Amino acid sequence: MSSETSKQSDWRDLASAVTPLDAAAMAAARARQARLTKPAGSLGRLEDLAVQVAGVQRWVVPRLAHRAIVVMAADHGVAAEGVSAYPQAVTAQMVANFLAGGAAINALARQIDARLVVVDVGVAAALPAGDGLWSAPIARGTANLACGPAMTRAQAEAAIAVGIGVVEREAARGLDAVVLGDMGIGNTTAGAALVAALCEHSPRDVVGRGTGIDDAGWARKVAVVERGLACNRADPADPLAVLAALGGFEHAGQVGVTLAAAARHALVVVDGLAAAAAALVAARLCPPVRDYLVAGHASVEPGQRTALAALGLEPLLDLGLRLGEGTGGALALQVVDAALRLHAEMATFAEAGVAERPGTESAD
Amino acid sequence: MSSETSKQSDWRDLASAVTPLDAAAMAAARARQARLTKPAGSLGRLEDLAVQVAGVQRWVVPRLAHRAIVVMAADHGVAAEGVSAYPQAVTAQMVANFLAGGAAINALARQIDARLVVVDVGVAAALPAGDGLWSAPIARGTANLACGPAMTRAQAEAAIAVGIGVVEREAARGLDAVVLGDMGIGNTTAGAALVAALCEHSPRDVVGRGTGIDDAGWARKVAVVERGLACNRADPADPLAVLAALGGFEHAGQVGVTLAAAARHALVVVDGLAAAAAALVAARLCPPVRDYLVAGHASVEPGQRTALAALGLEPLLDLGLRLGEGTGGALALQVVDAALRLHAEMATFAEAGVAERPGTESAD
Repeated sequence: MSSETSKQSDWRDLASAVTPLDAAAMAAARARQARLTKPAGSLGRLEDLAVQVAGVQRWVVPRLAHRAIVVMAADHGVAAEGVSAYPQAVTAQMVANFLAGGAAINALARQIDARLVVVDVGVAAALPAGDGLWSAPIARGTANLACGPAMTRAQAEAAIAVGIGVVEREAARGLDAVVLGDMGIGNTTAGAALVAALCEHSPRDVVGRGTGIDDAGWARKVAVVERGLACNRADPADPLAVLAALGGFEHAGQVGVTLAAAARHALVVVDGLAAAAAALVAARLCPPVRDYLVAGHASVEPGQRTALAALGLEPLLDLGLRLGEGTGGALALQVVDAALRLHAEMATFAEAGVAERPGTESAD
Repeated sequence: MSSETSKQSDWRDLASAVTPLDAAAMAAARARQARLTKPAGSLGRLEDLAVQVAGVQRWVVPRLAHRAIVVMAADHGVAAEGVSAYPQAVTAQMVANFLAGGAAINALARQIDARLVVVDVGVAAALPAGDGLWSAPIARGTANLACGPAMTRAQAEAAIAVGIGVVEREAARGLDAVVLGDMGIGNTTAGAALVAALCEHSPRDVVGRGTGIDDAGWARKVAVVERGLACNRADPADPLAVLAALGGFEHAGQVGVTLAAAARHALVVVDGLAAAAAALVAARLCPPVRDYLVAGHASVEPGQRTALAALGLEPLLDLGLRLGEGTGGALALQVVDAALRLHAEMATFAEAGVAERPGTESAD
């Protein structure tokens, strides 16, 4: 597999192609929900999910037949600052684990019957293409965001194009939903920096413990993000500049996946901090993207919750996850599946011969 | 199908047969989690679920190959007080809907590959056995709890025996997990009364809006529970007396299911208010039962959260559900499935050749 980025759509064209959700399909789906054999509203958020996906697919009874988890893997110059509990070599080792089928996201991909697409968008170690790896490295890791821009603007756009290319190929196989996955030692530092810059929050409010650093490591990580914000001074009104200055290649790749998926009317399931930061960048570049997003879960990372709040998204699950890879998104896709199955398969009151609720609001 | 209650185990024998979880299996499962290719603890509650089920099944890599959703259906004398937004006839109509495959729980049973067992343990309308219905009505609905005991002690024990009989038959087909489901117009009134009595809470703190009553209906429902508590004066130290005085046949049936499942080392997934109230009764009758329980979701019903807190259980999902039938439990079983699949299928650090975290707590 190769990236073939030169043939991909430009992100600006895709961003202008993202349409609002289909209001007529949503109204029809809402009306269908009201006729199903259950008290009105008793399926809670599952009802809202069915209506949202109807709007995404422009059809009253939507299905997510074809789905892919896209794991964008890349390394980070900022790892040199000692911000992770694991050495940088783990990024490449985990890519090998994905390709061998032994990682958490492999197990969940099997569970939810999704294709797993692993993309080298900038891993530090040279990784051979083939064996299922989509090889499209922009560079062997970003520069250190604490000392200057992590990427050039051209690199960020090239990584976005990689994500677009992945969706365009996957769409040819059918693509109704995509889960945003990530792998990159150091990427919670970059993700927190993105969220701090875009949401204008203090680093200490958005920096978390990543793979599990101690108090001293956390304080160092906060200081690194503070240095990154200070030396880059990226303008929050220019999301591409923020992405280039502070993000990782995997964040940029996920931005491309998000824009391209929304443009093709596929649902985008957001996972942890990396995906939430990328989704926030995508929504700043193209606000209609927001309605194509489902927030899979609440990560332990505080910056993820900040990004979801900025997007106006409420996470579906809260299971204390902090693994990344797309794991929380994959788990959430099961919930969306259940919502759509209920929407499609339940009988209406008329079909089942069940008495509807009397017209009065009081009990009888 | 018939109930054959005379041949079933006595609940007291089952209660004394429930053992603590297998500590050795749990320790081995915890050790396995530590070797899997992920930062320690990064799968959050999924790790705890895998360890719990290992303890339930007494095996380090447990599986939930065989599972059943047991929907206990019954009517309630207290429905005459106007505590529900729906007429009592809906109980029987929904049983017919279950048997025809059109209800929410049918769709979810298909989603999670579970057998659906529908039990008439006391529906007011006569329902013919056959077509998949387990027919074992104790009476055509309970008496009105607001005016005296809903059941005699003998009726409550007979309904418990129905639940035991269901599990004994299902166990013969293989039973690794059971989801507690319910159907009964008026049963959130009885469930709230059970929780108020067992937890010694005020009715206004545990009474909810059930299928959707308005403020006047809610105030009436609170007053009905207050009358029920006052006229029955059941001793919270005698959970069987509380169950008989204030519960429904479906609650008693679920108590039997819970005791029998725990005695047979099957996981019990708790759904909404009815299941949580029944699980609380079961755990009061037999405290070791508690460790066999998973709280599927946080219901909108306040009494459900009170009961889960009394059990020391944290719900897995919080999706705004208030449907009953076992729906929240069925959704949660998907999460347990994912936890077990991750536990079974992920590679260890050694298998994958991934660097383990350095011994120091600080980052490198």
